[in-house]
Amino acid sequence: MTPFPARLAAASGASGSVLCVGLDPDPERMPAAFASGASETAGATGAAAFCRAIVEATAERAAAFKPNLAFFEAYGPDGWDALDAVCEAVRASGRLLILDGKRGDIGNTGRRYATSLYDRLLGDASTVAPYMGSDSVAPFLEHEGRCAFVLVTTSNPGGADLQALVARGADGDERSLWRHTADMAIRAGDGLPGTVGFVAGATRPELLAEIREAYPEAPLLVPGVGAQGGTAGDVLRANAGGPILVNSSRGILYASGGDGFERAAREAASRLADSLAP
Amino acid sequence: MTPFPARLAAASGASGSVLCVGLDPDPERMPAAFASGASETAGATGAAAFCRAIVEATAERAAAFKPNLAFFEAYGPDGWDALDAVCEAVRASGRLLILDGKRGDIGNTGRRYATSLYDRLLGDASTVAPYMGSDSVAPFLEHEGRCAFVLVTTSNPGGADLQALVARGADGDERSLWRHTADMAIRAGDGLPGTVGFVAGATRPELLAEIREAYPEAPLLVPGVGAQGGTAGDVLRANAGGPILVNSSRGILYASGGDGFERAAREAASRLADSLAP
Repeated sequence: MTPFPARLAAASGASGSVLCVGLDPDPERMPAAFASGASETAGATGAAAFCRAIVEATAERAAAFKPNLAFFEAYGPDGWDALDAVCEAVRASGRLLILDGKRGDIGNTGRRYATSLYDRLLGDASTVAPYMGSDSVAPFLEHEGRCAFVLVTTSNPGGADLQALVARGADGDERSLWRHTADMAIRAGDGLPGTVGFVAGATRPELLAEIREAYPEAPLLVPGVGAQGGTAGDVLRANAGGPILVNSSRGILYASGGDGFERAAREAASRLADSLAP
Repeated sequence: MTPFPARLAAASGASGSVLCVGLDPDPERMPAAFASGASETAGATGAAAFCRAIVEATAERAAAFKPNLAFFEAYGPDGWDALDAVCEAVRASGRLLILDGKRGDIGNTGRRYATSLYDRLLGDASTVAPYMGSDSVAPFLEHEGRCAFVLVTTSNPGGADLQALVARGADGDERSLWRHTADMAIRAGDGLPGTVGFVAGATRPELLAEIREAYPEAPLLVPGVGAQGGTAGDVLRANAGGPILVNSSRGILYASGGDGFERAAREAASRLADSLAP
């Protein structure tokens, strides 16, 4: 399979954009017609229908879609059926499929997660939680052409709790934990160029710039533009032209809460894609 | 609901043991009769049947069972059906149900994971990945009577990559990352005593003793006894009588790889439970 960075470049070229649309079908925010709480089956069916409508409405200007597994998993087996359907819709759109599950585990266990994400759901990339270290990241790096976006600097208020801690490395240099994490992930992916990417929040563009400088070729997945407060301009400046996907979820999905949500989503995606044009 | 530590004490009393049996139905290790790769449905059905047989064989001497979600998720919707069945079998056994998914995400997203783990699967506890900080742990702490075992010191070789880094805290004191993580989790659970527990590996008993000293009342989930090399005696000494579950997966599940696996599992569980008697 073609290495992920080249596939990312192709998807960006086809859509004229580095936009990733996050598919977080939140029953508290979806248009009422989709958010039936009558049963798990109805909830899951509604979530899938809503996401498929969003994919159809926004695929022209999106390079990638990112279903967050939590919103499907909450419906149990029906939710995983719904996730299958959404993944199929994303693949049919020709855009990249980023599976946001923040999984992470070691050895055979991590490999079973990777089987789920890459072999079953056919994700082009996934998000990976790094706390357990290199052997918990490695199972996600064994799939040629795919990419593991390892959590490095996240855009939530508590992101700095651990990530900003400064620690001395084996070389005696002091670095933030997020930088140790990025270095560890790159070592875990040694010899598999393009399989290691980073989740780096838009709300801390100065850290984004540091990551980009340290790893000019690593794909970045950047949440936190829009609802969480980061700006497209800041992100693009910090990124300096490297491989990147900028994610927006709520700002597109819930641009309008009722009828006309597809048109509102298309317009919101288009505006953000325009602001992200290189 | 009764606070988790009291429920843990009751389950330990009923089984005369602090043993937790990890349910990791690995198709490469299960007896051949259960490990059919003919289809996802067959694979998931085999995994569920194997786990139910293990629960039946070992419940007398186990205080808890811990399905690892990766081994079910790999079969997609069928795997989640199988997980439902295994959870039901554990609940029917009267033992505690620990859901090992190492989930972690913020706000509404984390809440959807908690819905899955606590409201749907009716887990008594879950494992939580802490890298994203306090607001990624908090959604798992909002369920009275349940416990979130936050990853602190893990028993895998890469566990020390990040966890052992030493960083200065806001108070100027230098502490290992794992200690910062434990402190952060306790703060996130402020006012909800008993909802915050820790995953602390058996392979580093000196760290286990430090955790126990710092947090005398926190429930500990201790993997790494048996196949990974930690000893029961070291763990009990380090724990000093606090609330604890000691997990073994492979050493019990795959005590015999063929016919008679149930008897072999029962004997292995019984031996380990004996060695863990207070």
